[in-house]
Amino acid sequence: LCWKANSDALLNYPNLEVVQSVGAGVEHIHTLQGLTDKITICRLVDTNLSNDMWEYLLAAVLGHMRDFSFYSINQQSKKWNPKPYPSIKEKQIGIMGLGEIGGHVAKQFATMGFNVRGWSGSKKNIQGVESFDGNQFDEFLNGVDILINILPLTPQTQNILDRQNLSKLNKHAYVINVGRGNHLVEEDLIELLEEGFLSGAMLDVFKTEPLPESHPFWNHPTIQITPHIASETNLDSATDLIVENYKRLISNQALLHVVSQVKGY
Amino acid sequence: LCWKANSDALLNYPNLEVVQSVGAGVEHIHTLQGLTDKITICRLVDTNLSNDMWEYLLAAVLGHMRDFSFYSINQQSKKWNPKPYPSIKEKQIGIMGLGEIGGHVAKQFATMGFNVRGWSGSKKNIQGVESFDGNQFDEFLNGVDILINILPLTPQTQNILDRQNLSKLNKHAYVINVGRGNHLVEEDLIELLEEGFLSGAMLDVFKTEPLPESHPFWNHPTIQITPHIASETNLDSATDLIVENYKRLISNQALLHVVSQVKGY
Repeated sequence: LCWKANSDALLNYPNLEVVQSVGAGVEHIHTLQGLTDKITICRLVDTNLSNDMWEYLLAAVLGHMRDFSFYSINQQSKKWNPKPYPSIKEKQIGIMGLGEIGGHVAKQFATMGFNVRGWSGSKKNIQGVESFDGNQFDEFLNGVDILINILPLTPQTQNILDRQNLSKLNKHAYVINVGRGNHLVEEDLIELLEEGFLSGAMLDVFKTEPLPESHPFWNHPTIQITPHIASETNLDSATDLIVENYKRLISNQALLHVVSQVKGY
Repeated sequence: LCWKANSDALLNYPNLEVVQSVGAGVEHIHTLQGLTDKITICRLVDTNLSNDMWEYLLAAVLGHMRDFSFYSINQQSKKWNPKPYPSIKEKQIGIMGLGEIGGHVAKQFATMGFNVRGWSGSKKNIQGVESFDGNQFDEFLNGVDILINILPLTPQTQNILDRQNLSKLNKHAYVINVGRGNHLVEEDLIELLEEGFLSGAMLDVFKTEPLPESHPFWNHPTIQITPHIASETNLDSATDLIVENYKRLISNQALLHVVSQVKGY
Protein backbone atom coordinates (compact mmCIF):
# COMPACT_ATOMS: atom_id res chain seq x y z
CA LEU A 1 0.00 0.00 0.00
CA CYS A 2 1.46 3.35 -0.83
CA TRP A 3 1.05 7.02 -1.57
CA LYS A 4 4.02 8.91 -2.96
CA ALA A 5 6.61 6.43 -1.68
CA ASN A 6 10.36 7.05 -1.96
CA SER A 7 11.62 6.24 -5.46
CA ASP A 8 13.55 3.18 -4.22
CA ALA A 9 10.73 1.80 -2.07
CA LEU A 10 9.99 -1.23 -4.30
CA LEU A 11 13.61 -2.42 -4.37
CA ASN A 12 13.26 -3.99 -0.92
CA TYR A 13 10.52 -6.36 -2.11
CA PRO A 14 11.85 -8.72 -4.83
CA ASN A 15 8.71 -10.91 -4.72
CA LEU A 16 6.24 -8.04 -4.91
CA GLU A 17 3.02 -8.92 -6.72
CA VAL A 18 0.73 -5.93 -6.18
CA VAL A 19 1.06 -2.24 -5.43
CA GLN A 20 -2.20 -0.74 -4.18
CA SER A 21 -2.51 3.06 -4.26
CA VAL A 22 -4.34 4.48 -1.27
CA GLY A 23 -5.58 7.37 -3.44
CA ALA A 24 -7.35 7.59 -6.80
CA GLY A 25 -4.18 8.58 -8.68
CA VAL A 26 -1.35 6.18 -9.51
CA GLU A 27 1.16 8.48 -11.25
CA HIS A 28 3.30 8.31 -8.09
CA ILE A 29 3.67 4.54 -8.60
CA HIS A 30 4.63 4.53 -12.30
CA THR A 31 7.83 6.39 -11.57
CA LEU A 32 9.12 4.02 -8.86
CA GLN A 33 12.39 2.14 -9.56
CA GLY A 34 12.12 -1.60 -10.11
CA LEU A 35 8.52 -1.53 -11.37
CA THR A 36 8.02 -4.31 -13.91
CA ASP A 37 4.98 -5.51 -15.80
CA LYS A 38 4.89 -8.51 -13.45
CA ILE A 39 3.71 -6.16 -10.70
CA THR A 40 0.01 -5.34 -10.72
CA ILE A 41 -0.95 -1.76 -9.86
CA CYS A 42 -4.37 -1.13 -8.33
CA ARG A 43 -5.97 2.22 -7.63
CA LEU A 44 -8.61 3.33 -5.17
CA VAL A 45 -12.14 3.63 -6.53
CA ASP A 46 -14.55 4.83 -3.89
CA THR A 47 -17.92 6.53 -4.22
CA ASN A 48 -16.90 8.73 -1.28
CA LEU A 49 -14.03 10.13 -3.35
CA SER A 50 -16.42 10.89 -6.21
CA ASN A 51 -19.06 12.46 -3.96
CA ASP A 52 -16.54 14.62 -2.13
CA MET A 53 -15.11 15.83 -5.42
CA TRP A 54 -18.63 16.64 -6.64
CA GLU A 55 -19.39 18.72 -3.53
CA TYR A 56 -16.11 20.62 -3.80
CA LEU A 57 -16.62 21.34 -7.49
CA LEU A 58 -20.24 22.38 -7.02
CA ALA A 59 -19.15 24.83 -4.31
CA ALA A 60 -16.39 26.13 -6.60
CA VAL A 61 -18.63 26.55 -9.65
CA LEU A 62 -21.59 28.12 -7.83
CA GLY A 63 -19.28 30.37 -5.79
CA HIS A 64 -17.69 31.50 -9.07
CA MET A 65 -21.06 32.15 -10.73
CA ARG A 66 -22.18 34.19 -7.72
CA ASP A 67 -18.88 36.12 -7.59
CA PHE A 68 -18.02 35.19 -4.00
CA SER A 69 -14.32 35.99 -4.58
CA PHE A 70 -15.18 39.35 -6.12
CA TYR A 71 -17.34 40.21 -3.09
CA SER A 72 -14.67 38.99 -0.71
CA ILE A 73 -12.15 41.39 -2.29
CA ASN A 74 -14.78 44.17 -2.17
CA GLN A 75 -15.37 43.40 1.51
CA GLN A 76 -11.71 44.05 2.28
CA SER A 77 -12.09 47.57 0.87
CA LYS A 78 -15.65 48.00 2.28
CA LYS A 79 -17.16 48.30 -1.19
CA TRP A 80 -20.86 47.53 -1.75
CA ASN A 81 -20.94 46.67 -5.42
CA PRO A 82 -23.72 44.26 -6.44
CA LYS A 83 -23.48 42.91 -9.96
CA PRO A 84 -25.88 40.80 -12.02
CA TYR A 85 -25.26 37.08 -11.98
CA PRO A 86 -25.68 34.66 -14.88
CA SER A 87 -28.18 31.84 -15.00
CA ILE A 88 -26.58 28.41 -14.83
CA LYS A 89 -28.13 27.76 -18.24
CA GLU A 90 -26.00 30.51 -19.80
CA LYS A 91 -22.68 28.88 -18.93
CA GLN A 92 -20.94 25.91 -20.51
CA ILE A 93 -19.04 23.60 -18.21
CA GLY A 94 -16.30 21.43 -19.75
CA ILE A 95 -14.89 18.50 -17.82
CA MET A 96 -11.56 16.96 -18.80
CA GLY A 97 -11.60 13.33 -17.70
CA LEU A 98 -14.76 11.23 -17.56
CA GLY A 99 -13.51 8.30 -15.48
CA GLU A 100 -14.93 7.16 -12.14
CA ILE A 101 -14.75 10.61 -10.58
CA GLY A 102 -15.10 12.86 -13.63
CA GLY A 103 -18.01 10.84 -14.98
CA HIS A 104 -19.85 11.10 -11.68
CA VAL A 105 -19.21 14.83 -11.45
CA ALA A 106 -20.35 15.40 -15.06
CA LYS A 107 -23.58 13.50 -14.49
CA GLN A 108 -24.34 15.41 -11.28
CA PHE A 109 -23.73 18.81 -12.88
CA ALA A 110 -26.04 17.84 -15.75
CA THR A 111 -28.71 16.73 -13.25
CA MET A 112 -28.49 20.17 -11.58
CA GLY A 113 -29.35 21.80 -14.92
CA PHE A 114 -25.91 22.92 -16.07
CA ASN A 115 -24.76 22.64 -19.70
CA VAL A 116 -22.06 19.99 -19.45
CA ARG A 117 -19.64 18.53 -21.93
CA GLY A 118 -16.80 16.15 -21.25
CA TRP A 119 -13.59 15.00 -22.88
CA SER A 120 -11.94 11.61 -22.44
CA GLY A 121 -9.92 9.05 -24.39
CA SER A 122 -13.05 7.33 -25.67
CA LYS A 123 -16.58 8.71 -25.92
CA LYS A 124 -18.72 8.13 -22.85
CA ASN A 125 -22.47 7.76 -22.66
CA ILE A 126 -23.55 9.89 -19.68
CA GLN A 127 -27.06 11.25 -19.40
CA GLY A 128 -27.18 14.96 -20.23
CA VAL A 129 -23.45 15.19 -21.00
CA GLU A 130 -22.09 15.94 -24.47
CA SER A 131 -19.11 13.63 -24.89
CA PHE A 132 -15.95 14.25 -26.95
CA ASP A 133 -13.23 11.67 -27.61
CA GLY A 134 -9.45 11.96 -27.59
CA ASN A 135 -9.30 13.37 -31.13
CA GLN A 136 -11.85 16.10 -30.47
CA PHE A 137 -9.98 18.16 -27.90
CA ASP A 138 -10.20 21.44 -29.84
CA GLU A 139 -13.93 21.03 -30.46
CA PHE A 140 -14.37 20.27 -26.77
CA LEU A 141 -12.47 23.39 -25.61
CA ASN A 142 -14.19 25.74 -28.05
CA GLY A 143 -17.15 27.31 -26.20
CA VAL A 144 -16.29 26.33 -22.64
CA ASP A 145 -16.83 28.97 -19.89
CA ILE A 146 -15.82 26.88 -16.88
CA LEU A 147 -13.09 24.28 -17.41
CA ILE A 148 -12.65 21.53 -14.83
CA ASN A 149 -9.60 19.27 -15.04
CA ILE A 150 -9.91 15.82 -13.39
CA LEU A 151 -7.63 13.90 -15.78
CA PRO A 152 -5.21 11.26 -14.55
CA LEU A 153 -1.59 12.39 -14.87
CA THR A 154 0.28 10.54 -17.62
CA PRO A 155 3.09 11.55 -19.99
CA GLN A 156 0.32 12.43 -22.51
CA THR A 157 -1.65 14.70 -20.18
CA GLN A 158 1.30 16.44 -18.51
CA ASN A 159 1.27 20.20 -19.26
CA ILE A 160 -2.02 19.85 -21.15
CA LEU A 161 -3.31 23.07 -19.56
CA ASP A 162 -0.98 25.34 -21.51
CA ARG A 163 -1.40 28.63 -23.36
CA GLN A 164 -2.22 26.93 -26.65
CA ASN A 165 -5.08 24.88 -25.21
CA LEU A 166 -6.40 27.36 -22.65
CA SER A 167 -6.59 30.02 -25.41
CA LYS A 168 -9.28 27.94 -27.11
CA LEU A 169 -11.73 28.44 -24.23
CA ASN A 170 -14.31 31.23 -24.29
CA LYS A 171 -13.02 34.67 -23.37
CA HIS A 172 -13.19 35.24 -19.57
CA ALA A 173 -13.30 31.50 -18.94
CA TYR A 174 -12.66 30.18 -15.43
CA VAL A 175 -10.30 27.25 -14.80
CA ILE A 176 -10.58 24.73 -11.97
CA ASN A 177 -7.74 22.25 -11.50
CA VAL A 178 -8.38 19.28 -9.23
CA GLY A 179 -6.33 16.83 -11.33
CA ARG A 180 -2.61 17.24 -10.71
CA GLY A 181 -0.31 20.22 -10.53
CA ASN A 182 1.74 18.85 -13.44
CA HIS A 183 -1.23 19.17 -15.78
CA LEU A 184 -0.86 22.95 -15.63
CA VAL A 185 1.80 25.19 -17.14
CA GLU A 186 1.83 27.69 -14.31
CA GLU A 187 3.42 30.62 -16.17
CA ASP A 188 0.86 30.26 -18.98
CA LEU A 189 -2.03 30.46 -16.53
CA ILE A 190 -0.64 33.60 -14.91
CA GLU A 191 -0.08 35.24 -18.31
CA LEU A 192 -3.60 34.48 -19.51
CA LEU A 193 -5.06 35.85 -16.26
CA GLU A 194 -3.00 39.01 -16.50
CA GLU A 195 -3.92 39.54 -20.14
CA GLY A 196 -7.57 39.36 -19.01
CA PHE A 197 -8.29 36.41 -21.30
CA LEU A 198 -9.11 34.13 -18.35
CA SER A 199 -11.22 35.56 -15.52
CA GLY A 200 -9.88 33.44 -12.67
CA ALA A 201 -8.80 30.04 -11.43
CA MET A 202 -9.43 27.78 -8.49
CA LEU A 203 -6.51 25.44 -7.83
CA ASP A 204 -6.40 22.51 -5.42
CA VAL A 205 -3.26 20.79 -6.77
CA PHE A 206 0.22 22.10 -7.49
CA LYS A 207 3.53 20.98 -9.01
CA THR A 208 5.07 21.25 -5.54
CA GLU A 209 2.92 20.62 -2.47
CA PRO A 210 2.79 22.32 -0.05
CA LEU A 211 2.90 25.27 -2.43
CA PRO A 212 6.18 27.11 -1.67
CA GLU A 213 5.83 30.45 0.11
CA SER A 214 7.63 32.24 -2.72
CA HIS A 215 5.13 31.04 -5.36
CA PRO A 216 3.31 33.81 -7.30
CA PHE A 217 -0.05 31.93 -7.06
CA TRP A 218 -0.39 32.82 -3.37
CA ASN A 219 -1.08 36.50 -3.78
CA HIS A 220 -2.59 36.52 -7.24
CA PRO A 221 -5.93 38.37 -6.96
CA THR A 222 -7.89 36.07 -9.30
CA ILE A 223 -6.46 32.74 -8.12
CA GLN A 224 -8.19 30.93 -5.27
CA ILE A 225 -6.10 28.26 -3.54
CA THR A 226 -7.16 25.24 -1.50
CA PRO A 227 -4.50 22.90 -0.09
CA HIS A 228 -5.32 19.63 -1.91
CA ILE A 229 -8.56 19.03 -0.01
CA ALA A 230 -11.06 18.62 -2.87
CA SER A 231 -11.42 14.92 -2.16
CA GLU A 232 -9.66 13.04 0.61
CA THR A 233 -9.36 9.29 0.99
CA ASN A 234 -11.95 8.06 3.46
CA LEU A 235 -10.12 5.66 5.79
CA ASP A 236 -13.12 3.44 6.49
CA SER A 237 -14.20 2.85 2.93
CA ALA A 238 -10.61 2.69 1.61
CA THR A 239 -9.80 0.00 4.17
CA ASP A 240 -12.78 -2.05 3.02
CA LEU A 241 -11.51 -1.97 -0.56
CA ILE A 242 -7.96 -2.86 0.41
CA VAL A 243 -9.08 -5.82 2.52
CA GLU A 244 -11.29 -6.99 -0.35
CA ASN A 245 -8.38 -6.84 -2.80
CA TYR A 246 -6.12 -8.70 -0.35
CA LYS A 247 -8.69 -11.48 0.00
CA ARG A 248 -8.95 -11.69 -3.78
CA LEU A 249 -5.17 -11.88 -4.10
CA ILE A 250 -4.72 -14.76 -1.67
CA SER A 251 -7.60 -16.68 -3.24
CA ASN A 252 -6.35 -16.08 -6.80
CA GLN A 253 -9.39 -14.03 -7.86
CA ALA A 254 -9.23 -11.06 -10.23
CA LEU A 255 -8.25 -7.88 -8.39
CA LEU A 256 -10.44 -4.78 -8.40
CA HIS A 257 -9.43 -1.53 -10.12
CA VAL A 258 -6.30 -2.74 -11.87
CA VAL A 259 -4.47 0.03 -13.73
CA SER A 260 -3.20 -0.35 -17.29
CA GLN A 261 0.56 0.20 -17.24
CA VAL A 262 0.35 1.16 -20.92
CA LYS A 263 -2.38 3.80 -20.55
CA GLY A 264 -1.11 4.80 -17.12
CA TYR A 265 -4.58 4.91 -15.51
CA LEU B 1 -45.82 48.55 -8.73
CA CYS B 2 -43.24 49.36 -6.15
CA TRP B 3 -40.12 48.45 -4.23
CA LYS B 4 -39.22 50.51 -1.17
CA ALA B 5 -41.28 53.55 -2.23
CA ASN B 6 -41.18 56.85 -0.34
CA SER B 7 -43.39 56.67 2.74
CA ASP B 8 -45.92 59.13 1.22
CA ALA B 9 -46.05 57.46 -2.18
CA LEU B 10 -49.61 56.12 -1.82
CA LEU B 11 -51.09 59.48 -0.85
CA ASN B 12 -51.15 60.63 -4.47
CA TYR B 13 -53.51 57.81 -5.48
CA PRO B 14 -56.87 58.12 -3.66
CA ASN B 15 -58.51 55.42 -5.83
CA LEU B 16 -55.71 52.90 -5.46
CA GLU B 17 -56.89 49.28 -5.54
CA VAL B 18 -53.71 47.18 -5.66
CA VAL B 19 -50.08 47.55 -4.69
CA GLN B 20 -47.89 44.94 -6.38
CA SER B 21 -44.44 44.39 -4.92
CA VAL B 22 -41.77 43.79 -7.54
CA GLY B 23 -39.85 41.62 -5.06
CA ALA B 24 -40.76 38.66 -2.88
CA GLY B 25 -40.91 40.77 0.32
CA VAL B 26 -43.72 43.18 1.13
CA GLU B 27 -42.55 44.65 4.46
CA HIS B 28 -41.69 47.85 2.59
CA ILE B 29 -45.38 48.26 1.65
CA HIS B 30 -46.91 47.67 5.09
CA THR B 31 -45.26 50.81 6.44
CA LEU B 32 -46.52 53.20 3.73
CA GLN B 33 -48.83 56.03 4.81
CA GLY B 34 -52.44 55.80 3.70
CA LEU B 35 -52.50 52.01 3.40
CA THR B 36 -55.99 50.73 4.22
CA ASP B 37 -57.51 47.27 4.14
CA LYS B 38 -59.35 48.31 0.95
CA ILE B 39 -56.00 48.17 -0.85
CA THR B 40 -54.89 44.72 -1.92
CA ILE B 41 -51.18 43.93 -1.58
CA CYS B 42 -49.64 41.35 -3.91
CA ARG B 43 -46.16 39.94 -3.79
CA LEU B 44 -43.91 38.42 -6.40
CA VAL B 45 -43.80 34.63 -6.49
CA ASP B 46 -41.44 33.36 -9.16
CA THR B 47 -39.67 30.04 -9.50
CA ASN B 48 -36.61 31.99 -10.70
CA LEU B 49 -36.42 33.71 -7.29
CA SER B 50 -36.58 30.34 -5.53
CA ASN B 51 -34.01 28.71 -7.81
CA ASP B 52 -31.58 31.61 -7.52
CA MET B 53 -31.89 31.54 -3.73
CA TRP B 54 -31.25 27.78 -3.75
CA GLU B 55 -28.08 28.18 -5.82
CA TYR B 56 -26.77 30.96 -3.56
CA LEU B 57 -27.48 28.99 -0.40
CA LEU B 58 -25.97 25.79 -1.77
CA ALA B 59 -22.80 27.70 -2.65
CA ALA B 60 -22.77 29.24 0.83
CA VAL B 61 -23.34 25.95 2.69
CA LEU B 62 -20.89 23.86 0.64
CA GLY B 63 -18.29 26.65 0.72
CA HIS B 64 -18.67 26.74 4.51
CA MET B 65 -18.37 22.96 4.85
CA ARG B 66 -15.23 22.97 2.71
CA ASP B 67 -13.74 25.94 4.64
CA PHE B 68 -13.30 28.19 1.62
CA SER B 69 -13.19 31.30 3.84
CA PHE B 70 -10.61 29.70 6.12
CA TYR B 71 -8.43 28.85 3.11
CA SER B 72 -8.90 32.32 1.66
CA ILE B 73 -7.58 33.86 4.89
CA ASN B 74 -4.70 31.33 4.89
CA GLN B 75 -3.94 32.27 1.30
CA GLN B 76 -3.41 35.91 2.32
CA SER B 77 -0.69 34.78 4.73
CA LYS B 78 0.62 32.05 2.34
CA LYS B 79 -0.29 29.27 4.77
CA TRP B 80 -0.81 25.70 3.51
CA ASN B 81 -3.03 24.23 6.19
CA PRO B 82 -5.35 21.43 5.04
CA LYS B 83 -7.97 20.34 7.52
CA PRO B 84 -10.45 17.46 7.46
CA TYR B 85 -13.93 18.31 6.19
CA PRO B 86 -17.21 16.91 7.50
CA SER B 87 -19.58 14.76 5.52
CA ILE B 88 -22.84 16.50 4.65
CA LYS B 89 -24.58 13.77 6.63
CA GLU B 90 -22.88 14.94 9.85
CA LYS B 91 -24.36 18.43 9.75
CA GLN B 92 -27.88 19.60 10.58
CA ILE B 93 -29.31 22.41 8.48
CA GLY B 94 -32.17 24.44 9.96
CA ILE B 95 -34.27 26.69 7.72
CA MET B 96 -36.39 29.46 9.23
CA GLY B 97 -39.28 30.07 6.85
CA LEU B 98 -40.83 27.36 4.69
CA GLY B 99 -42.84 29.52 2.29
CA GLU B 100 -42.46 29.59 -1.50
CA ILE B 101 -38.71 30.18 -1.37
CA GLY B 102 -37.79 28.50 1.94
CA GLY B 103 -39.88 25.42 1.14
CA HIS B 104 -38.15 25.03 -2.22
CA VAL B 105 -34.72 25.46 -0.68
CA ALA B 106 -35.47 22.96 2.11
CA LYS B 107 -36.66 20.34 -0.37
CA GLN B 108 -33.59 20.79 -2.58
CA PHE B 109 -31.14 20.50 0.34
CA ALA B 110 -32.91 17.32 1.44
CA THR B 111 -32.70 15.91 -2.10
CA MET B 112 -28.92 16.57 -2.06
CA GLY B 113 -28.63 14.35 1.03
CA PHE B 114 -28.40 16.99 3.78
CA ASN B 115 -30.17 16.63 7.13
CA VAL B 116 -32.78 19.36 6.93
CA ARG B 117 -35.33 20.71 9.34
CA GLY B 118 -37.56 23.73 8.91
CA TRP B 119 -39.57 26.09 11.07
CA SER B 120 -42.67 27.98 9.98
CA GLY B 121 -45.98 29.22 11.37
CA SER B 122 -47.73 25.97 10.55
CA LYS B 123 -46.17 22.56 9.95
CA LYS B 124 -45.31 21.83 6.34
CA ASN B 125 -45.19 18.50 4.58
CA ILE B 126 -41.98 18.55 2.53
CA GLN B 127 -40.25 15.34 1.48
CA GLY B 128 -37.18 14.67 3.60
CA VAL B 129 -37.64 17.77 5.77
CA GLU B 130 -38.45 17.59 9.48
CA SER B 131 -41.02 20.32 10.06
CA PHE B 132 -41.57 22.37 13.25
CA ASP B 133 -44.49 24.76 13.82
CA GLY B 134 -44.60 28.21 15.37
CA ASN B 135 -44.70 26.86 18.95
CA GLN B 136 -41.67 24.60 18.50
CA PHE B 137 -38.99 27.22 17.89
CA ASP B 138 -36.70 26.04 20.72
CA GLU B 139 -36.93 22.40 19.63
CA PHE B 140 -36.15 23.50 16.09
CA LEU B 141 -33.05 25.50 17.09
CA ASN B 142 -31.65 22.82 19.39
CA GLY B 143 -29.19 20.73 17.35
CA VAL B 144 -28.80 23.00 14.31
CA ASP B 145 -25.27 23.42 12.86
CA ILE B 146 -26.12 25.66 9.91
CA LEU B 147 -28.99 28.11 10.38
CA ILE B 148 -30.56 29.72 7.31
CA ASN B 149 -33.03 32.57 7.76
CA ILE B 150 -35.52 33.16 4.90
CA LEU B 151 -38.44 34.44 7.01
CA PRO B 152 -40.64 37.30 5.88
CA LEU B 153 -40.10 40.43 7.98
CA THR B 154 -43.06 41.16 10.27
CA PRO B 155 -43.35 42.73 13.74
CA GLN B 156 -43.22 39.14 15.11
CA THR B 157 -40.04 38.12 13.30
CA GLN B 158 -38.11 41.36 13.74
CA ASN B 159 -34.94 40.81 15.85
CA ILE B 160 -35.65 37.06 16.01
CA LEU B 161 -31.94 36.31 15.46
CA ASP B 162 -30.87 37.53 18.89
CA ARG B 163 -28.53 36.22 21.58
CA GLN B 164 -31.26 34.26 23.33
CA ASN B 165 -32.28 32.34 20.21
CA LEU B 166 -28.88 31.99 18.55
CA SER B 167 -27.50 30.55 21.82
CA LYS B 168 -29.78 27.54 21.37
CA LEU B 169 -27.95 26.41 18.22
CA ASN B 170 -25.15 23.85 18.38
CA LYS B 171 -21.80 25.17 19.49
CA HIS B 172 -19.78 26.48 16.48
CA ALA B 173 -22.95 26.86 14.42
CA TYR B 174 -22.87 28.93 11.24
CA VAL B 175 -25.55 31.51 10.45
CA ILE B 176 -26.73 32.54 6.98
CA ASN B 177 -29.12 35.48 6.72
CA VAL B 178 -30.90 35.99 3.40
CA GLY B 179 -34.16 37.21 4.98
CA ARG B 180 -33.93 40.83 6.05
CA GLY B 181 -31.37 42.82 8.00
CA ASN B 182 -33.97 43.63 10.65
CA HIS B 183 -34.27 39.95 11.58
CA LEU B 184 -30.80 40.12 13.09
CA VAL B 185 -29.60 41.82 16.27
CA GLU B 186 -26.21 42.81 14.92
CA GLU B 187 -24.42 43.33 18.24
CA ASP B 188 -25.57 39.90 19.46
CA LEU B 189 -24.14 38.21 16.37
CA ILE B 190 -20.78 39.93 16.79
CA GLU B 191 -20.65 39.00 20.49
CA LEU B 192 -21.44 35.33 19.82
CA LEU B 193 -18.78 35.19 17.09
CA GLU B 194 -16.19 36.80 19.34
CA GLU B 195 -17.01 34.48 22.22
CA GLY B 196 -16.37 31.59 19.80
CA PHE B 197 -19.88 30.21 20.26
CA LEU B 198 -20.75 30.78 16.60
CA SER B 199 -18.11 29.88 13.99
CA GLY B 200 -19.10 32.35 11.28
CA ALA B 201 -21.85 34.04 9.34
CA MET B 202 -22.73 34.79 5.75
CA LEU B 203 -24.91 37.85 5.40
CA ASP B 204 -26.66 39.10 2.27
CA VAL B 205 -29.09 41.56 3.94
CA PHE B 206 -28.54 44.38 6.40
CA LYS B 207 -30.47 46.87 8.50
CA THR B 208 -29.06 49.64 6.32
CA GLU B 209 -28.21 48.93 2.68
CA PRO B 210 -25.71 49.66 1.28
CA LEU B 211 -23.93 48.62 4.48
CA PRO B 212 -22.29 51.81 5.84
CA GLU B 213 -18.51 51.98 5.54
CA SER B 214 -18.15 52.39 9.30
CA HIS B 215 -20.02 49.14 10.06
CA PRO B 216 -18.04 46.52 12.07
CA PHE B 217 -19.32 43.68 9.82
CA TRP B 218 -17.05 44.77 6.96
CA ASN B 219 -13.75 43.72 8.49
CA HIS B 220 -14.92 40.98 10.81
CA PRO B 221 -12.76 37.92 10.02
CA THR B 222 -15.59 35.35 10.30
CA ILE B 223 -18.34 37.33 8.55
CA GLN B 224 -18.71 37.00 4.79
CA ILE B 225 -20.71 39.76 3.11
CA THR B 226 -22.56 39.77 -0.20
CA PRO B 227 -24.43 42.92 -1.28
CA HIS B 228 -28.06 41.66 -1.38
CA ILE B 229 -27.54 39.49 -4.44
CA ALA B 230 -28.77 36.09 -3.20
CA SER B 231 -31.84 36.29 -5.39
CA GLU B 232 -32.66 39.11 -7.76
CA THR B 233 -35.98 39.77 -9.45
CA ASN B 234 -35.88 38.45 -12.99
CA LEU B 235 -37.35 41.20 -15.18
CA ASP B 236 -38.80 38.87 -17.82
CA SER B 237 -40.62 36.52 -15.50
CA ALA B 238 -41.65 39.29 -13.07
CA THR B 239 -43.19 41.22 -15.96
CA ASP B 240 -45.21 38.17 -16.96
CA LEU B 241 -46.66 37.91 -13.46
CA ILE B 242 -47.45 41.62 -13.25
CA VAL B 243 -49.22 41.60 -16.63
CA GLU B 244 -51.17 38.51 -15.56
CA ASN B 245 -52.29 40.22 -12.34
CA TYR B 246 -53.26 43.37 -14.24
CA LYS B 247 -55.42 41.34 -16.64
CA ARG B 248 -57.06 39.63 -13.67
CA LEU B 249 -57.74 42.99 -12.03
CA ILE B 250 -59.47 44.55 -15.05
CA SER B 251 -61.56 41.41 -15.64
CA ASN B 252 -62.53 41.11 -11.93
CA GLN B 253 -60.76 37.78 -11.41
CA ALA B 254 -58.98 36.80 -8.19
CA LEU B 255 -55.45 38.21 -8.08
CA LEU B 256 -52.39 36.00 -7.65
CA HIS B 257 -50.19 36.04 -4.54
CA VAL B 258 -52.30 38.32 -2.36
CA VAL B 259 -50.67 39.07 0.99
CA SER B 260 -52.53 38.84 4.30
CA GLN B 261 -52.41 42.28 5.92
CA VAL B 262 -52.93 40.56 9.28
CA LYS B 263 -50.09 38.04 8.96
CA GLY B 264 -47.96 40.49 7.01
CA TYR B 265 -46.87 37.94 4.37
